[in-house]
Amino acid sequence: MTDPRRQISGPERRALLELTLGLVDACADTIRACVAAGFEVERKADGSLVTSADIAAEKGFREGLLASRPDAGILGEELGLTNADADFRWVIDPIDGTAEFARHMPIYGSIVGVYYRDAPLIGVLDHPALGMRVHAVHGEGAFANGRPLSVETYAGLAPGVRLGLPSRSSFLKDSDNEAVHQALVAAYPNFRVYHTCYAHTLVASGALDASMEWDTPAWDLAATRVIVEEAGGRYVTLREHDRPGVGTVYSAVFGRAAVVEEVAALVERYA
Amino acid sequence: MTDPRRQISGPERRALLELTLGLVDACADTIRACVAAGFEVERKADGSLVTSADIAAEKGFREGLLASRPDAGILGEELGLTNADADFRWVIDPIDGTAEFARHMPIYGSIVGVYYRDAPLIGVLDHPALGMRVHAVHGEGAFANGRPLSVETYAGLAPGVRLGLPSRSSFLKDSDNEAVHQALVAAYPNFRVYHTCYAHTLVASGALDASMEWDTPAWDLAATRVIVEEAGGRYVTLREHDRPGVGTVYSAVFGRAAVVEEVAALVERYA
Repeated sequence: MTDPRRQISGPERRALLELTLGLVDACADTIRACVAAGFEVERKADGSLVTSADIAAEKGFREGLLASRPDAGILGEELGLTNADADFRWVIDPIDGTAEFARHMPIYGSIVGVYYRDAPLIGVLDHPALGMRVHAVHGEGAFANGRPLSVETYAGLAPGVRLGLPSRSSFLKDSDNEAVHQALVAAYPNFRVYHTCYAHTLVASGALDASMEWDTPAWDLAATRVIVEEAGGRYVTLREHDRPGVGTVYSAVFGRAAVVEEVAALVERYA
Repeated sequence: MTDPRRQISGPERRALLELTLGLVDACADTIRACVAAGFEVERKADGSLVTSADIAAEKGFREGLLASRPDAGILGEELGLTNADADFRWVIDPIDGTAEFARHMPIYGSIVGVYYRDAPLIGVLDHPALGMRVHAVHGEGAFANGRPLSVETYAGLAPGVRLGLPSRSSFLKDSDNEAVHQALVAAYPNFRVYHTCYAHTLVASGALDASMEWDTPAWDLAATRVIVEEAGGRYVTLREHDRPGVGTVYSAVFGRAAVVEEVAALVERYA
């Protein structure tokens, strides 16, 4: 099967990137304006938090995108699916780590992925409060604020693998995967739990050897595969299933190939 | 027993704070200059990392302090103890989270505590890469970049306690406290592992309900007690013992009183 992304020329990729980065700029401006002006926090039906900043940022992104491409597909955490059959789809989590954001912790971020016929073409992880933006275009490398990234940058700097994990509650949400969590914690005593796209940024820059998500919606991983692969790493989907009212949720591990393979094998034994 | 800190007048406290914040400013300048110019990373005898930035920052702090107060006591992570019998002692960890810093992760920070006859008088947690500084003076409140802090700010924002934990490896370093770690992970499924003074900053601002350290040297906790108490929280030392070549190491939990008491009781059952 031919990779559908081959049909997208270099100039078209760069035009898509320019459009997407402009929308992310506007998203970051909206978030910063909400922080400056104050924002509302509400509890969603599933118990998770949403703020007026999440809604405003996703609305602005949708309006900007549809103004320039009325046929664009959009899947957003807060406002659902638009133009479901479009060839190009933008997937957005306007504020990943809302619980952190609502508490004014700076490591939250915006996640944007652009897909062509389900293949990841562009990924952006933007951290407005950290002044840090990671992006990648399929075939053109991964960058943080313009600097090329490699998952191997700090390989071997210190003994012991640094693995990012989601919180234990993620392993219990849809089904009891306590055994997977326990096996991971036992095998990787230097694990970290940052629990936002901040961890994905750290993987892309080599600061974490690898990280994982467990049973998480598409928008949380929207940017990660293309960024990690373009930074020379591996991305493995561990499992996927349907969560009523949310859609497909995914478990994945990504980072340096050697660590990713080891983690994937361990998860397979315990899941 | 009278609190020795009562002997320190308001003007004297403010002079000590001004001196200390000036030294932290210089420390941050040194760290930023090292980041810009590049720095060396080495492995210490205990396997942990040290960079040329750690050494340069602590040296600058010591020289600046002794130039203005030649009789000052100083305990630093990298360069040991000076003027051991002094009434006033500055305790400094120039870069807490060196492993993070060496990988260019932004959440590392400088920790400074000022003690008068062993009682914590001033605490500073400075995050040069985040543009965030927390400080407190005994009896005068805790502040982040001048804004007053309370550990209760986000209490009840979402269900479930957010507890910061050190990595599992900390619980295994000096003796086997696997049972304590397991009990904490079981009781607090929404736990986080940030593993630097960043977690202490989050507690002071209420973003984490509480956080813990396990078997960690004095400099890692140098600023925390006075900051958390001045932000309206509680600080409980869970245990302390001598680690050869390092000195006394401490385990502590700190944050919102209700959570701190619950965690302390749980640790007592399993330690």
